Amino acid sequence: MILQDTIIALASPSGAGAIAVIRISGTDAITLCDPFFSSVKKNKQLAQQKSHTIHLGHIVDGKRVIDQVLVSIFKGPNSYTGENVVEISCHGSTYIQQEIIQLFLRNGCRMAEAGEFTLRAFINGKLDLSQAEAVADLISSDNEASHQIAMQQMRGGFSNEIQHLRDELLNFASLIELELDFAEEDVEFADRSQFEALVDRIQTVLKRLIDSFAVGNVIKNGIPVAIVGAPNVGKSTLLNALLNEERAIVSDIAGTTRDTIEDELVIQGIGFRFIDTAGIRETEDVVESIGIKKTFEKIGQAQVVIYLFDASHFEENSQLITVEIEKIKNQFPQKPLVIIANKIDKSNTEKIQTELSYEHLLLLSAKENIGVEDLKDKLLQFVNTGALRNNETIVTNSRHYDSLLKALEEIEKVQLGLNDGLSGDLLAIDIRQALYYFGEITGEVTTDDLLGNIFANFCIGK
Amino acid sequence: MILQDTIIALASPSGAGAIAVIRISGTDAITLCDPFFSSVKKNKQLAQQKSHTIHLGHIVDGKRVIDQVLVSIFKGPNSYTGENVVEISCHGSTYIQQEIIQLFLRNGCRMAEAGEFTLRAFINGKLDLSQAEAVADLISSDNEASHQIAMQQMRGGFSNEIQHLRDELLNFASLIELELDFAEEDVEFADRSQFEALVDRIQTVLKRLIDSFAVGNVIKNGIPVAIVGAPNVGKSTLLNALLNEERAIVSDIAGTTRDTIEDELVIQGIGFRFIDTAGIRETEDVVESIGIKKTFEKIGQAQVVIYLFDASHFEENSQLITVEIEKIKNQFPQKPLVIIANKIDKSNTEKIQTELSYEHLLLLSAKENIGVEDLKDKLLQFVNTGALRNNETIVTNSRHYDSLLKALEEIEKVQLGLNDGLSGDLLAIDIRQALYYFGEITGEVTTDDLLGNIFANFCIGK
Repeated sequence: MILQDTIIALASPSGAGAIAVIRISGTDAITLCDPFFSSVKKNKQLAQQKSHTIHLGHIVDGKRVIDQVLVSIFKGPNSYTGENVVEISCHGSTYIQQEIIQLFLRNGCRMAEAGEFTLRAFINGKLDLSQAEAVADLISSDNEASHQIAMQQMRGGFSNEIQHLRDELLNFASLIELELDFAEEDVEFADRSQFEALVDRIQTVLKRLIDSFAVGNVIKNGIPVAIVGAPNVGKSTLLNALLNEERAIVSDIAGTTRDTIEDELVIQGIGFRFIDTAGIRETEDVVESIGIKKTFEKIGQAQVVIYLFDASHFEENSQLITVEIEKIKNQFPQKPLVIIANKIDKSNTEKIQTELSYEHLLLLSAKENIGVEDLKDKLLQFVNTGALRNNETIVTNSRHYDSLLKALEEIEKVQLGLNDGLSGDLLAIDIRQALYYFGEITGEVTTDDLLGNIFANFCIGK
Repeated sequence: MILQDTIIALASPSGAGAIAVIRISGTDAITLCDPFFSSVKKNKQLAQQKSHTIHLGHIVDGKRVIDQVLVSIFKGPNSYTGENVVEISCHGSTYIQQEIIQLFLRNGCRMAEAGEFTLRAFINGKLDLSQAEAVADLISSDNEASHQIAMQQMRGGFSNEIQHLRDELLNFASLIELELDFAEEDVEFADRSQFEALVDRIQTVLKRLIDSFAVGNVIKNGIPVAIVGAPNVGKSTLLNALLNEERAIVSDIAGTTRDTIEDELVIQGIGFRFIDTAGIRETEDVVESIGIKKTFEKIGQAQVVIYLFDASHFEENSQLITVEIEKIKNQFPQKPLVIIANKIDKSNTEKIQTELSYEHLLLLSAKENIGVEDLKDKLLQFVNTGALRNNETIVTNSRHYDSLLKALEEIEKVQLGLNDGLSGDLLAIDIRQALYYFGEITGEVTTDDLLGNIFANFCIGK
């Protein structure tokens, strides 16, 4: 990794807006900008300005004036990357953005790779690796829960917990390794009972973190909800009823409306992804039976299943409906299943309530917006938000999850070793291995491949 | 117009990116942010910081941390709007953008209307009206020519020219009005021959500016080029050949690729808009004849017409092709017409050159990329870029154009009056009227309606 060169990228979203921000980082970032910045005040040199100051002027290429801009100066190490950083705030035309970037590409900058600013922040010790990863999570967070988790991770909550365990373990590892130096004298510097207590504690924490991944992962990606139902029972009306309300909230803030994500909905800060299925009606048609197979696959991937039927045609279909519900329950006995009788505004609901005595039966009219709120409440019930509410550390990153699993495996080996009275030198190997996996999370142990993989998922400009 | 309140808006493009910028302006902008900004340095108050400084910290809502941000402080009158301004640079998730904006909307800010920041800049005397309008033009400029014109206008080139004429005219108006006070003494403070010379000069300048609008308007909006040709003669291949090259240039800069605008192409800094037509082949079919009518309408709107035919089928169609070309020439004798023989890689071109002896005949193969450069050169020939090259003031705004036309009309009345020896009091009325129209351009004369119309076309956040 070459850190000597100066990198440039658009940091604000691409496209036209009122303003755009172009970021330049590197030892030479400020001096490199100076010849192309003409201050409104005569003879002002950027290199002579204080850190964290803003300067009005023009970006010029010889006699050609490209734009009137504000230039912000950050001097390393007090910058995002830890290097000298210049941020150019220009008018938001894509043409101007391009012209300014092109100008600096011709004059000593190179285009930043995805995540390279944050990579430099990591390399320069401004962030540890899990914090750097949280930056990408934070940018892609689109609801309160995923935002909260990313924010906590970025502020070092997760790193601190890992670091703390690592330090304690490292301490014992050193003591045990010290014993090896005095092997012939048969001393024990490391108190075995204290060590067992620590190994216990580490296992408890690791298991909690590993368990939190189930919650963390769905919160990060949205909780998948499969909707099963025959055509015309009102699937799209239900989705619209759920989504419209949310869309109305979003569009309250002009200029900040986000790209509509089909069938994704945030309820009380938790994201839900609704997966439409083709239903599971029995059929002899080959094509349709493929559809049914796919439906079961989608149910398998979902966290919650909604079975939707048309209440106004319940009498003639009641047997079929019961069969279908039982089929889902048999196939996925553990999966929460919400049964929704839709179109109750034009149905007799008594018969339904008698015949379908399921725990999660909801009477609803998507069209008349009856019962939609109850459905939202019910969906929230299925999400274990306890850890979230208690502000505990939640693991959302599958890389961290993998490292935690491996660390736990090694710690369990250490425990076995302790129980079996294993010799210090063999214990030390397992401890070192556990420490290695802890270090992978915070970035104390890295490889270029690992870093490459992580930062390739960032957007350019970050 | 209420200027006491504090306005907020997203200033960077909407959507997710590495960072986003939220702008707040108003007398209370800085003090209003203070309770929601928690500096990394203890007890730092934004209100006590110097103008043009940047501060790292968190946006907090009580105990809830919304984001780590950089806050830039600008103290009026040394800011874009002339008021106190705060710019919050946050992580670019749309969720975070919304949360921060919502926080401040709940706590004393209101959503800025389109262009309201620039409106305030105008009201506070930071920009005149034509400069303010140039800001919007600058943001929407997508090629070198429109950018250059907007930049010149924003830097006051146009305003200065108008202001200069206005000052001279105002001087004479005052002298003539002074004469009225001494009407009984029959003196002439205003030298009539000098005045005639000035009126002459003003007319010349006005006419030049008015004439520049024809160029300015097409440069601002792109030069419309109609492509006429039967199906399968290679219209889309030609467009792709023209566009691909351009797209390749754009995509060189990762992260700055703009949204592809269908069939818009920049050649040497000038924008061209290609309008596909249905062709004009004779037909008895009613639907098709509507198509032909539309084709002629589109040709009417275009600045340049391209007639495209398949050279490899020239022999069997030569008569038809000649008829069609003649039809266009007869209907639009003034309009530049480029005749393109496409697919010359598999044709005998001699016969074509003999039979079609038109000035702008081009032999081309879109597929093999033969002659495409010649076509670009030819298109550029039809644009009068003289004024652009000479860095003269070019009028692109139809409001300015209207005011200039009206001012010219009044100045012509003044000239007539001078020739007829009209009395000073009557002359003064026409001069005042001309001054009024000059003032409309730079904004010395405004109405709320006029300002409303102008700024409604801005984006929010500017």
